[in-house]
Amino acid sequence: MIYDLPPELDRDRLAHTFDSAANAAAQHTLTRFRTELLVDNKFEIGFDPVTEADRAAEEAIRAVITAAFPDHSIIGEELEDKRTDSDFAWIIDPIDGTRAYISGVPVWGTLLGLMHKGRAIAGMMTQPYTGERWQAMGEETAFWWRDQKSRVITSTTTELGRAKATTTTPDMFTSAGLADAWSAISDRALQVRYGLDCYGYCLLASGHIDLVVETGLKDVDIAPLIPIIRGAGGVVTTWDGGDAEAGGNCIAAATPQLHAEAQRVLRDALGT
Amino acid sequence: MIYDLPPELDRDRLAHTFDSAANAAAQHTLTRFRTELLVDNKFEIGFDPVTEADRAAEEAIRAVITAAFPDHSIIGEELEDKRTDSDFAWIIDPIDGTRAYISGVPVWGTLLGLMHKGRAIAGMMTQPYTGERWQAMGEETAFWWRDQKSRVITSTTTELGRAKATTTTPDMFTSAGLADAWSAISDRALQVRYGLDCYGYCLLASGHIDLVVETGLKDVDIAPLIPIIRGAGGVVTTWDGGDAEAGGNCIAAATPQLHAEAQRVLRDALGT
Repeated sequence: MIYDLPPELDRDRLAHTFDSAANAAAQHTLTRFRTELLVDNKFEIGFDPVTEADRAAEEAIRAVITAAFPDHSIIGEELEDKRTDSDFAWIIDPIDGTRAYISGVPVWGTLLGLMHKGRAIAGMMTQPYTGERWQAMGEETAFWWRDQKSRVITSTTTELGRAKATTTTPDMFTSAGLADAWSAISDRALQVRYGLDCYGYCLLASGHIDLVVETGLKDVDIAPLIPIIRGAGGVVTTWDGGDAEAGGNCIAAATPQLHAEAQRVLRDALGT
Repeated sequence: MIYDLPPELDRDRLAHTFDSAANAAAQHTLTRFRTELLVDNKFEIGFDPVTEADRAAEEAIRAVITAAFPDHSIIGEELEDKRTDSDFAWIIDPIDGTRAYISGVPVWGTLLGLMHKGRAIAGMMTQPYTGERWQAMGEETAFWWRDQKSRVITSTTTELGRAKATTTTPDMFTSAGLADAWSAISDRALQVRYGLDCYGYCLLASGHIDLVVETGLKDVDIAPLIPIIRGAGGVVTTWDGGDAEAGGNCIAAATPQLHAEAQRVLRDALGT
């Protein structure tokens, strides 16, 4: 389902903001990609890399948004939220897939979404190393590769047994129940790929991946991708069929039929 | 260790063959990437995609080799081997990472290697969508991204606890013993990524990944990558320290120290 843009939102300004944000972020992300990185640890235990690139890119994107829409709220992965009275809130993940980023794998992306009264109504993902961009704003999803622009649509796959499925890592399923749920999906799917982060959802929008099943997502991880998936004809919800904007356990599918089958398989595996 | 090119081998002709093979293969692989694919099943059971692109690319590469070195042997993943009396044998994997390929993920690669008396002495990996190429021929490994050429070297990581490790999929470890061996590596590593196929070895050559541990490789999967890894300063052997040219269980590491530690951990886990 594609949500119309609210009439009070200036469409040209929105498009310009996405363009400027993509370019501003790339100045920090692409220039530092595959260089020696300053990697902080967010937590004392474990390994959750936050790079200088991450913070600098979010600052650059915030500056672009604030210039264009000074009254909108801004929610970002790295910096403190800016909360206003506006019905509009921007949601930023400057580098989704930081582990891919620090491993030199060009499947990370810069995510930027626009929420209106809690609904994700527009979204963008850019991958500056490959020169790719997926974008949706109240209509069908567009894809750019370097200078070539095209419309993308999801695949017609309706059965799990014929589906190419992905999840970022099987280690994401941290309890026995969740691991069983993922096994139920992966055992039935035609094939499984790991390691894609946001790129997996975008390949679903483009019709190359049929199903993404993940757990423990944050709002910034998924909200900007929702309009991209929906604008291409896909379905994205939480595992129990709720709105995915807040993150959590999420499922994205190429078709409603495949979405329903995957939901059933997860439900049976979880015994719910 | 870098092997010198045998003096009877024409270096310019070798370089030209790599260039021509990369271009010829891309005509078939890149043009069909992310399009509707003809996917055959090699086996009646399971899912081992072989695309038209795979076969057409191998034919194109064989034509380039045969024109330049008509007496050399040619071993390819898709077509029948050409065996001659020559000390030289070319080894081709037209699309390493066919599952990545059919999922639209640009981490597949075209692999071409040259063997001399059973040793991998030169190798190339090309990824035409990203415009990347890694190449080694008797000296330090070179990397191209579009028009930029640079030398690559492996990281200085000597400890598993500080290593970024990868394997194509945890499903590769098909017995309980192999799965335990991989767990012993992944539990100790700083971070783990999946889904990279040949691209993981090339990122190791470039210093972004520190360790690759895989099982059940074919000769075509690994032989062309050996000169690339060694020419960047890395170490690649079988798990038990033997030559990796024939494939099997392989380990590639950024430094000899990391290689030795990973070997120890695998040996302990396997109880050998």
